[in-house]
This record gives sequence, structure tokens and C-alpha cells, in this order.
Amino acid sequence: MILCDIGNTTFHFNINGEEQRYLVNSEIPDFKERIYYISVNENATAKLKHKNDDIIDLEPYLEFKTKYVGMGLDRKIACCFLEDTILVDAGSAITVDIMKKKKHKGGFILPGLKAFRDIYPQISHKLDVDLNTKVNLDKIPLCTKDAISYAILKSIIEPIKKVSKKKQITFTGGDGEFLSKFFDNSIYKKDIIFENMRRIIDANNCIT
Amino acid sequence: MILCDIGNTTFHFNINGEEQRYLVNSEIPDFKERIYYISVNENATAKLKHKNDDIIDLEPYLEFKTKYVGMGLDRKIACCFLEDTILVDAGSAITVDIMKKKKHKGGFILPGLKAFRDIYPQISHKLDVDLNTKVNLDKIPLCTKDAISYAILKSIIEPIKKVSKKKQITFTGGDGEFLSKFFDNSIYKKDIIFENMRRIIDANNCIT
Repeated sequence: MILCDIGNTTFHFNINGEEQRYLVNSEIPDFKERIYYISVNENATAKLKHKNDDIIDLEPYLEFKTKYVGMGLDRKIACCFLEDTILVDAGSAITVDIMKKKKHKGGFILPGLKAFRDIYPQISHKLDVDLNTKVNLDKIPLCTKDAISYAILKSIIEPIKKVSKKKQITFTGGDGEFLSKFFDNSIYKKDIIFENMRRIIDANNCIT
Repeated sequence: MILCDIGNTTFHFNINGEEQRYLVNSEIPDFKERIYYISVNENATAKLKHKNDDIIDLEPYLEFKTKYVGMGLDRKIACCFLEDTILVDAGSAITVDIMKKKKHKGGFILPGLKAFRDIYPQISHKLDVDLNTKVNLDKIPLCTKDAISYAILKSIIEPIKKVSKKKQITFTGGDGEFLSKFFDNSIYKKDIIFENMRRIIDANNCIT
């Protein structure tokens, strides 16, 4: 089975369990099998359709209710089978969503780790440092690199801690595993989007 | 008395108590009086010197010891007469410095409010929203504008709260007054840099 999560910058494929990524503006292969996809990027979707006849959009099969206006499809897919947890999807942005008794209660959007780091050189070239992922968060920093690394990590960790109130936190996304280590009450799920896409396909066996 | 704080982007003058700002690449007036200045910007300093003969650099008169490596001169000047407080200077970056018994214990550097907001459109055009300065920080957001505004404010507020441990917090800088309102134990000082420049001049009366 071929699954594809089409994002702003990447085609993220899962081909019989194996992952492949292509930038949306790069060449993508011809696939001979049906592709189930979700997409937040119309142009990239058109490109995939142009190369492959048999592709099925899973969005119409998603059942997810929320009062949140403007929630991205990938966020909805990630949350849709969760019961009681905070979902943190740490990619180019870090979305934080609160699920309580299977209901979506809202959420917030932090910049991703890379975006966060990239702000600083735009303020001053003196603040152009690499993230020290091992900075000690229990000590007040004593140099610029640590001062920025500490600020970035604390700015992400503290708002999540504040909202989680010791509830379980589920991490996913490229930086999910790294960030999950700063929380006692956390689990990391690498492929929550693909897992949930498969569950939607299974639940709607008419479409397989 | 004319004071000038030369930053990365701005000449910030205090002329007998009145403030004037000029971008570093714009025309600046000829002053007929002595100018006392501090600077983190060599090119801008050269420009000021070129127009005005009688200018005095206050940096050599500053007595400020710290183990922090690479602390900006403006940060040192802001901290130099403080005893026990957290100093938050909220400008293009937000520097947070811990002073304990007149000693500088270190600090960290958050992006300024504007820089923070400007990250989001660089991640996705869907995240290009204005900061809602009145977002309710006690409710989980239910739309993109609030989701981003909540994240920005929490990312700044929570790390400062965490480090302050109910100690007094002194705010200064362009966004200092706005941010101070989120803290019970805060005071706002508009002109801490100029106040301290005057104190350095007074303490070294040889230079007046």
C-alpha cells in the first residue's frame, strides 16, 4: 500500500512501510499502485495526479469535529483517533493540540526548532549560532550560544508543560523524538499520520 | 546633556531628557554640544564621529564584571547598577539577565515580539497573521491567529516566570511596558540605559 502525506515542502511517502521523501519541486517516480493521500498543498497534489492515475484523497473520509477554525488537515489526521493526550507534532512548525475524552479542545502553534534558530541571525549577525542541543536547562547560560539554545528550548518546553498539567504527551514529527526527552510523561510515535491514514482506509473498506 | 545609545539599526538620542531616534543609514543632525555615547555598531559610531568632534565613549568607564562571554555593551549598561532583579530588555531581541546581590549570574536571549511574529510567514503563508495582543492566555486557542499569538506570548512569558521564581522583574525596551503587564512582580523603567549612562558620567566627574 502506498500512502502519501503532501506538505508545504515535501511529498512524504510510505510505500509498504518504507518511507521516502521528495521535495515538492523535485522529480517524483511513477508509481504503478494506488496512492492514498492527504494534502495541504494543491499544486503538489496536481503534480502527483498528473503522474499517477489511481490516487485517492482521504480527506472526505475523515470524521473529525472541532470548534477550531482553520485547523490543517495533517493536524486533524494526527489527532483523529486520540482519546486523552496532548499531541505535539514537531516539524517546520510545532503544533500542540489538546484531546480530552476524544474531543479536540484547541491548540497552539510554536515555530519549529529550525525556524526558531533561524530567527536570531535576522535580528543580528552576532546571534548567528548553532543550537546546542545539550545545553543545561537547569543553569543560567554564560555565553551567547547557550543563551540562545536555552531560550529556544525553554520557549518550546515551558508552554507545553504548562498546558499538559502532567497529562500524557504524544510526540510525533521530525523533532518529536528529541523534544519528547524533556518530558517525563511523554511517548513518541514516529508515524502517527500514516497509522491514522491506514485506520481511515480500514474503517472505510469500500475504498480499498 | 546629549546621550546616544547606538544600536544595530538605530541611533537613540536623549537630548536634555528628550528622545530622538534615527535609523543608522539615515541623515543625522550636527550637534553643537558634547555627546556621550555607547555603541554596539562600529560603522554607525564612525558616522556620528564624522559629524561631531566632541564625542565621548562611555565604555571604558563601565565597571561590570561577569563570567558571561560575549555580553553586549547595552546589556551590561542596563544591568550595571542593579542589585537583585531579573532585567528584561524587550527590543528587537529580548535579553533576560539575572542580577543577584549586585552580581550578574547569566542570562538568555529570546527573539523580540516582532521577530517572533515574522517567523511564522516564513514557515507557511497560512501562518501570516497579526499578533492578537489581547488573546486570552487562560483558554486554549480555537483559531490560527490566537494559536500563534498564544504561542508567542507563552514562549516569552513562561521562561521568564520560570527563572524569576517570584523575584522582582524589571522591564525596559520598546515592548517592555506591554510585557510587564503579564507579571505581578514587575516594574517598568523606560530609560534604564540613559539613566545608567548618566550615573556613569556622574561617578566619573573627571569626564564632564
